[in-house]
Amino acid sequence: MKVGIIGLGKMGSGIAKKLLIKNHEIIGFDVDKKALNEIKKAGGIVTDSIGEFLERININETPIVWVMLPSGDITNGTLMLLKEKLKKGSIIIDAGNSNYKDSVKNSEQIKNSSINWLDIGTSGGVLGFERGYCFMVGGDQEAYNYISPILNALSKKDGYGYMGKAGSGHFVKMIHNGIEYGLMQAYAEGFELLEKNSKYKLDLSKILNLWQNGSIIESLLLEVSKDIFKEDSKLENIKGYVEDSGEGRWTAEEAIVEGVCLPVITMALMQRFRSRQEETFSDKVIAQMRNGFGGHSVKS
Amino acid sequence: MKVGIIGLGKMGSGIAKKLLIKNHEIIGFDVDKKALNEIKKAGGIVTDSIGEFLERININETPIVWVMLPSGDITNGTLMLLKEKLKKGSIIIDAGNSNYKDSVKNSEQIKNSSINWLDIGTSGGVLGFERGYCFMVGGDQEAYNYISPILNALSKKDGYGYMGKAGSGHFVKMIHNGIEYGLMQAYAEGFELLEKNSKYKLDLSKILNLWQNGSIIESLLLEVSKDIFKEDSKLENIKGYVEDSGEGRWTAEEAIVEGVCLPVITMALMQRFRSRQEETFSDKVIAQMRNGFGGHSVKS
Repeated sequence: MKVGIIGLGKMGSGIAKKLLIKNHEIIGFDVDKKALNEIKKAGGIVTDSIGEFLERININETPIVWVMLPSGDITNGTLMLLKEKLKKGSIIIDAGNSNYKDSVKNSEQIKNSSINWLDIGTSGGVLGFERGYCFMVGGDQEAYNYISPILNALSKKDGYGYMGKAGSGHFVKMIHNGIEYGLMQAYAEGFELLEKNSKYKLDLSKILNLWQNGSIIESLLLEVSKDIFKEDSKLENIKGYVEDSGEGRWTAEEAIVEGVCLPVITMALMQRFRSRQEETFSDKVIAQMRNGFGGHSVKS
Repeated sequence: MKVGIIGLGKMGSGIAKKLLIKNHEIIGFDVDKKALNEIKKAGGIVTDSIGEFLERININETPIVWVMLPSGDITNGTLMLLKEKLKKGSIIIDAGNSNYKDSVKNSEQIKNSSINWLDIGTSGGVLGFERGYCFMVGGDQEAYNYISPILNALSKKDGYGYMGKAGSGHFVKMIHNGIEYGLMQAYAEGFELLEKNSKYKLDLSKILNLWQNGSIIESLLLEVSKDIFKEDSKLENIKGYVEDSGEGRWTAEEAIVEGVCLPVITMALMQRFRSRQEETFSDKVIAQMRNGFGGHSVKS
């Protein structure tokens, strides 16, 4: 099939290259020349002109455009542009990490223009290129069936599935990422206790590798992390500062809206916030309170 | 090599059979006739007499006894009996889920009798028979080297390793299990939110299977859980009551002793405790307080 891909970053370029290897045709758009060159070398048609991109893709009977951009304004703006410029019957795919609520809104507008909509939660990271990506798909079921040869080419046999109506792909992906927050925090706390223990001199790199070879906590997350202790076993050269890109917050918000108890996932999110502060105001408050009622000394 | 195994339950019998397949000799002891018969059929020598077991194993130049029993009194008692009855230079292995503090004490007494000690944290569950177990080993390094052909026969190439002095094998296994509590709770909360969501009708069995095929949260834990939603997708036929067998508590205790912050692992443990109560006294207290200061109604 012929697929237009907007956004040739880490994920978009991996997907483009994998589709080219599997004999699909790619029309790639990005503003980064290096990214374009990479896909051109791999056999794709590329352009840094959105006008040329749209012309080339609109020639097809059923234009398919795969959007793989950072979530938020960039993605939403691009989707609205595509809505205006693609012909009726096209298929627009948002395969980024959009908030499912955005996807519901975007899908409604896009359907009003008689264009088909799919929101695809994409997992597998950069390893997906080799191992096969995992796709959670929401939106028009006919469009899903139509593009399934593409999903099939990109993933393992059971690595893609139709979740339900518009938004459900990103909804399931959101919770997938919320779980990931909890998993990462659980592993990290284990390594914290191993590292801080005062009884044994333990080799964390060796232990991680051991766990990855037959233990019940073996996982893809540990696999992609297998070298983290190799060169700097005490992680002395990096700061314990952890960003988030939204999905953990959205999962916690969803839990609050639905009144569902998610203590560990929420706590994992809170620990990321905590990681960004050298000290907290709340800890100062507690120190001051202890001083107030018990005369316990305060550090200044 | 010739290995005496005490305890032919799920794990012990898997290990015995795997060693027999790999052409090691097994002398098995258990009080359960059925368990003994299974190992006899697989080619092992078995007995329900501890006296006969000891006689047969003490013939060897370096008797090796692998103890695979529930942690606590049963294991500790057995280890002390072996200490009395095995000849000098023997190797006693505690491969169960003993508390590392017990292992430190047991190892000291056993070393005083000039017997070698190994504490082995064993992971991999019943899948270990096929996939290879994972062994975290503490104790006498020479004894570790001596029995390494056994560990090698039972695990993947990198599925066993020497952690350090006595107790360290069970110490690392304890934290491994603590991590497992956190991982399980993170997955479970994700499924809770998927199940409780009011927006989409989602197929949890399909989602679990999808995630296990290329997503970044793919893991052995999900693999062994892949059928949990198959026949009863709402889990209506089981109670949400979760037991614990100690390692999570010990991990949390260790964090407290060392003053290390493990919020997610500790919370996962607390959620298990919570699962055993229909309602909590603390929630009654809060309901009563809300009634007291705000006149909010109380259910009775």
